[in-house]
Amino acid sequence: MSSSFASIFKISTWGESHGVGVGVVIDGCPAGVSISPELIQTELDRRRPGQSSIVTPRDEADRVEILSGVLDGKTLGTPIALSVRNKDQRSTAYNEMQHCYRPSHADYCYDAKYGIRAWAGGGRASARETIGRVAAGAVAKAVIKTLYPDLEIIAWVAQVHQVICPMSPADVCAATVESNMVRTADEASAKAMIAAIESARSAGDSVGGIVACSIRNAPVGLGDPVFDKLEATLAHAMMSIPACKGFEVGSGFAAANYRGSEHNDPYYMEGDRVRTRSNLSGGIQGGMSNGENINMRMAFKPTATLMIEQDTVNDEHIELKLRGKGRHDACVLPRAVPVVESMAAIVICDHVLRQRSAQI
Amino acid sequence: MSSSFASIFKISTWGESHGVGVGVVIDGCPAGVSISPELIQTELDRRRPGQSSIVTPRDEADRVEILSGVLDGKTLGTPIALSVRNKDQRSTAYNEMQHCYRPSHADYCYDAKYGIRAWAGGGRASARETIGRVAAGAVAKAVIKTLYPDLEIIAWVAQVHQVICPMSPADVCAATVESNMVRTADEASAKAMIAAIESARSAGDSVGGIVACSIRNAPVGLGDPVFDKLEATLAHAMMSIPACKGFEVGSGFAAANYRGSEHNDPYYMEGDRVRTRSNLSGGIQGGMSNGENINMRMAFKPTATLMIEQDTVNDEHIELKLRGKGRHDACVLPRAVPVVESMAAIVICDHVLRQRSAQI
Amino acid sequence: MSSSFASIFKISTWGESHGVGVGVVIDGCPAGVSISPELIQTELDRRRPGQSSIVTPRDEADRVEILSGVLDGKTLGTPIALSVRNKDQRSTAYNEMQHCYRPSHADYCYDAKYGIRAWAGGGRASARETIGRVAAGAVAKAVIKTLYPDLEIIAWVAQVHQVICPMSPADVCAATVESNMVRTADEASAKAMIAAIESARSAGDSVGGIVACSIRNAPVGLGDPVFDKLEATLAHAMMSIPACKGFEVGSGFAAANYRGSEHNDPYYMEGDRVRTRSNLSGGIQGGMSNGENINMRMAFKPTATLMIEQDTVNDEHIELKLRGKGRHDACVLPRAVPVVESMAAIVICDHVLRQRSAQI
Amino acid sequence: MSSSFASIFKISTWGESHGVGVGVVIDGCPAGVSISPELIQTELDRRRPGQSSIVTPRDEADRVEILSGVLDGKTLGTPIALSVRNKDQRSTAYNEMQHCYRPSHADYCYDAKYGIRAWAGGGRASARETIGRVAAGAVAKAVIKTLYPDLEIIAWVAQVHQVICPMSPADVCAATVESNMVRTADEASAKAMIAAIESARSAGDSVGGIVACSIRNAPVGLGDPVFDKLEATLAHAMMSIPACKGFEVGSGFAAANYRGSEHNDPYYMEGDRVRTRSNLSGGIQGGMSNGENINMRMAFKPTATLMIEQDTVNDEHIELKLRGKGRHDACVLPRAVPVVESMAAIVICDHVLRQRSAQI
Repeated sequence: MSSSFASIFKISTWGESHGVGVGVVIDGCPAGVSISPELIQTELDRRRPGQSSIVTPRDEADRVEILSGVLDGKTLGTPIALSVRNKDQRSTAYNEMQHCYRPSHADYCYDAKYGIRAWAGGGRASARETIGRVAAGAVAKAVIKTLYPDLEIIAWVAQVHQVICPMSPADVCAATVESNMVRTADEASAKAMIAAIESARSAGDSVGGIVACSIRNAPVGLGDPVFDKLEATLAHAMMSIPACKGFEVGSGFAAANYRGSEHNDPYYMEGDRVRTRSNLSGGIQGGMSNGENINMRMAFKPTATLMIEQDTVNDEHIELKLRGKGRHDACVLPRAVPVVESMAAIVICDHVLRQRSAQI
Repeated sequence: MSSSFASIFKISTWGESHGVGVGVVIDGCPAGVSISPELIQTELDRRRPGQSSIVTPRDEADRVEILSGVLDGKTLGTPIALSVRNKDQRSTAYNEMQHCYRPSHADYCYDAKYGIRAWAGGGRASARETIGRVAAGAVAKAVIKTLYPDLEIIAWVAQVHQVICPMSPADVCAATVESNMVRTADEASAKAMIAAIESARSAGDSVGGIVACSIRNAPVGLGDPVFDKLEATLAHAMMSIPACKGFEVGSGFAAANYRGSEHNDPYYMEGDRVRTRSNLSGGIQGGMSNGENINMRMAFKPTATLMIEQDTVNDEHIELKLRGKGRHDACVLPRAVPVVESMAAIVICDHVLRQRSAQI
Repeated sequence: MSSSFASIFKISTWGESHGVGVGVVIDGCPAGVSISPELIQTELDRRRPGQSSIVTPRDEADRVEILSGVLDGKTLGTPIALSVRNKDQRSTAYNEMQHCYRPSHADYCYDAKYGIRAWAGGGRASARETIGRVAAGAVAKAVIKTLYPDLEIIAWVAQVHQVICPMSPADVCAATVESNMVRTADEASAKAMIAAIESARSAGDSVGGIVACSIRNAPVGLGDPVFDKLEATLAHAMMSIPACKGFEVGSGFAAANYRGSEHNDPYYMEGDRVRTRSNLSGGIQGGMSNGENINMRMAFKPTATLMIEQDTVNDEHIELKLRGKGRHDACVLPRAVPVVESMAAIVICDHVLRQRSAQI
Repeated sequence: MSSSFASIFKISTWGESHGVGVGVVIDGCPAGVSISPELIQTELDRRRPGQSSIVTPRDEADRVEILSGVLDGKTLGTPIALSVRNKDQRSTAYNEMQHCYRPSHADYCYDAKYGIRAWAGGGRASARETIGRVAAGAVAKAVIKTLYPDLEIIAWVAQVHQVICPMSPADVCAATVESNMVRTADEASAKAMIAAIESARSAGDSVGGIVACSIRNAPVGLGDPVFDKLEATLAHAMMSIPACKGFEVGSGFAAANYRGSEHNDPYYMEGDRVRTRSNLSGGIQGGMSNGENINMRMAFKPTATLMIEQDTVNDEHIELKLRGKGRHDACVLPRAVPVVESMAAIVICDHVLRQRSAQI
């Protein structure tokens, strides 16, 4: 189990879905950063279920408590422990999930690897695990904001099933994204995406899609070649989010369709600033930020929990039928948006601090 | 600069393109593994330029030397240092590359981050950097082979520009891949891909594409949730390879087109083995291998060095025109195949060792 | 701030003296270990103030809560979060400690390094910080007990001021150590040590001393040369305990008085077991355990907080006089005993897991 | 095997005594530091055998080669690989050492842990292993010198067997230390120490002693509580040096003899600088440097290889007699001095870089 991430701004998340709670310890946050419970709570509220008609209607209060590392609203340089209590602690009632392996869930692999599994609600593999990420991301954003007030990290839903948001990354506006319940970049796409989600949900089914993320106004040089290149650490961060199946930066998989003469981003001077005329590099060259927008896209599979009967096996290796119960998101993407932003913020914050040792 | 990778089977690569040499130190390889210079050399030869008419014709001998960690053909458990001397050490002749930023290369970012740059031949950002990866990968393969003789790691070129190899991952055969100079999975695709590369090369241009990789017969449970999930560490590894722009596992970006009922992989029993009927998960569920084939795909951009004049700037921030010189691959994908396999082997080897602490 | 320790059995402690609480996250504990709150509480109770007349009479309940990582009394392989709430949260009353640098305390250095300081009760530099260590140590002991039931970790007070316990390490018995309030190895020493502590306390003064620790029945081979030798990681662990000024293993500083012919430990066979006739090596050769008792000693300085007036300066760099207030241990050593054992257990547990990758 | 050390200025050493060579890769050295082969060679020459009549007369040339990371005398920010070829590569002649466990050497533990052992010359457990440390230490010193020109790291032999150098740490002068072959701090002690060493050597025996080290003019705040306190990381570094049996800082083991009122270091102002009147803390409080001299002492056991017959066993567990052959140091301390300085420099350099993230 490796629930630790990053190099200087190190986070360790903990917690099972139906245990006492979930949380994170941040070891390596610089002293002197302004932090408040509200700042963290705001991000957690964006991740929370029950915000709108299209996400799961459970009411998880998810109140964060700052246990350490902050005094009078300033970070101390000591570890910041953040905790959220679970409301739905483990049911004592019998639950068929205890012995059944849900298709395309983590159940079987947890049993195989550890010989034991927190079966209630998915345990550590539950989406509740992302609470620690978002809480840490809120702190990372505060660090970044202090050092680079113009740096902006914005994620949005770029595709739900076959509905594609046509907005160019450079034109996406945070206020618009937060104004619609699906967190996409324009109203028309929002309507169509919501329809696609409702259609799946009413059939007991689910849909996936693509989340895009742009980091604007990053300083030049973030990223540590050769293994901790910016895109490599971002990929690590994003691919660790539950249900993420793909990561691309800049031209991404479309790179295959270009010739070099079309794909290279020619340099030019804009005043005293080195710029590129195109940005197929996605703001990263040689593994380091080049000052252009850092553009990436992450694919998410459809929610695995369905209200439809499926074939599966149990932990005694008996084949059986399974139908999901309870309330689940028919599409995780709207709630994945703050998780993506948080992981991006943690990576950027870590590289900003690592950057301090690049030169003598 | 972070040239260290992995957790137990730790590698540290070093070396610039036109310095004394390149190499790697592996710290954490178990004792008792059979290793020979030939075993490593065979992998390095696959990566070497000049193997065929479509890759750069430079003759780099790239002879590996085992400096430590092996006695009488067995690993000692001590660090394994592997070194390859450069033949083309730094030219003393004036080189315009010294002050010019090649478009979509690392030059500008290195200067911005470090204030200094090994300009000759790309320095640390040269493809020669991957020699250390391939040498370490050969050792990782030997560890894996000892523990899991049936485990197979195979990569191939799945697309070059618009030529797509139609072969299904499960049908790809290593011998076929090595039998054609472009390292794709069938002869017809090989011909078409070579034509596409030759066409680009004759125009002074370049093409990119997609490398696919399958890991077959892996044990169940590899991968450490939540941050070092198998797909997350594979993505980190792959996205750190020069020119890689995208990573996907299983259904990948196509996941968006499925409903959950189509995307879930139903479990069934095959004898006493838990299997899935489909494999859109790509052999990984909950961040751990489930025993099915682990299938991934990596996008590579077209080579940035072109024999065509391009706009750029120099380190005095003067705009100018640049045309590449020397001999360069018009398509890096054939040589990327062993690099992809090596990074996959390092990740798998590391997880195999981490796995030993999963249970009491 | 680096509040993370160890390599596979990784711990991250958090918490300030007068914040919300203190605790630890253990990331990397194998699944299947039996753990209970009582098991952890028992160790915490040994560390707690107010156990006897010679330690500070504050009544800190220090009730541990297991927040994650354990189900039905078994570890899950997921992070184990342990938390203890503080009773004495930050006083709102004015406190001269807020601006004054107590001599030989951490106050000045915290201000200099971080520009901010949790002044109440010493903040992160308080002895309460060791709660996280002891809680993690209890889990480490449980892992060790499962794998090596005969392995014993025992610490005791070997010296208080000028009173030296004459007991040979091999003869020290855990029951005797726990039977006297100073945690030394025989009753006569206990009486004399208590007298020395009472004498210092009545003068508003304090005393230091030496804690010894033996690890018995450890397997051969623990320790990872060349930098993570067993004695090097033990030294790291022990020297990180507040007030620890010295570490020695085996002959330690007395090694200087021996010639090689006197110091070498000759090997002999005891049945089929390789043994040494003497044990000046302290159970470690070449950085690895050799199967003999691992013997070490740690020096602790006298408590820095005194009820006697001392010269010092404040954070405005004004010289002034200071006299300690409140209730403090006149000698930390009895309470350091469980902390030493805990750090030893964490190191041993980590090496036991690392050991699993030594051979193929 | 863990041959990696430190956190930002990461080193990985490699090499066996009678293999191809020994060396180190430094990953994380900032760009822009002036480095030359001579600078590194000078330090290696201090460590080399054959410098004087009292150390082993073998002539090891130990020429360092910079393989990467430096261009035109400046560090590039990329990994710095340093290599020294062995002259005495593995003898093909039969050697009884191959099967015999030398008392108080690492032989038995290597066999037990790894199941294999580079027996010739001690392999990885040879003193040649320290070449990588000294080479890396030379680079660390160059980084420190650039940032803190007044910071001085000086080590000296404070005791050989029963000969104690009476010089106070604050009075020790580097030129004097280098002027005598035993590297102690005054001429009279040098004579007496040399006599003690010669006496042991002529008897085929050996002696140990104590190396002291002072770090002067360090900035305030170095060290990362709570686990990577300055004294904890220094202890880790020092206790990893072959033959080191003890570490103490400031008052060290003598701390037990003081009452708190005698041991506390009162603060006062010297101009605008906070100083302490005494320095029993050894320049470290709360795990961080306080600006006073950092004083530490390390105990080294007598060389284990003796020209006297000893009892031991072999790898078939047969008891037998052994007498050392070849030429060995009767006292390692003079050559340990540059190793101690190097490890101190690596620790300080690492903390200097870590320090950059302490505040926003």
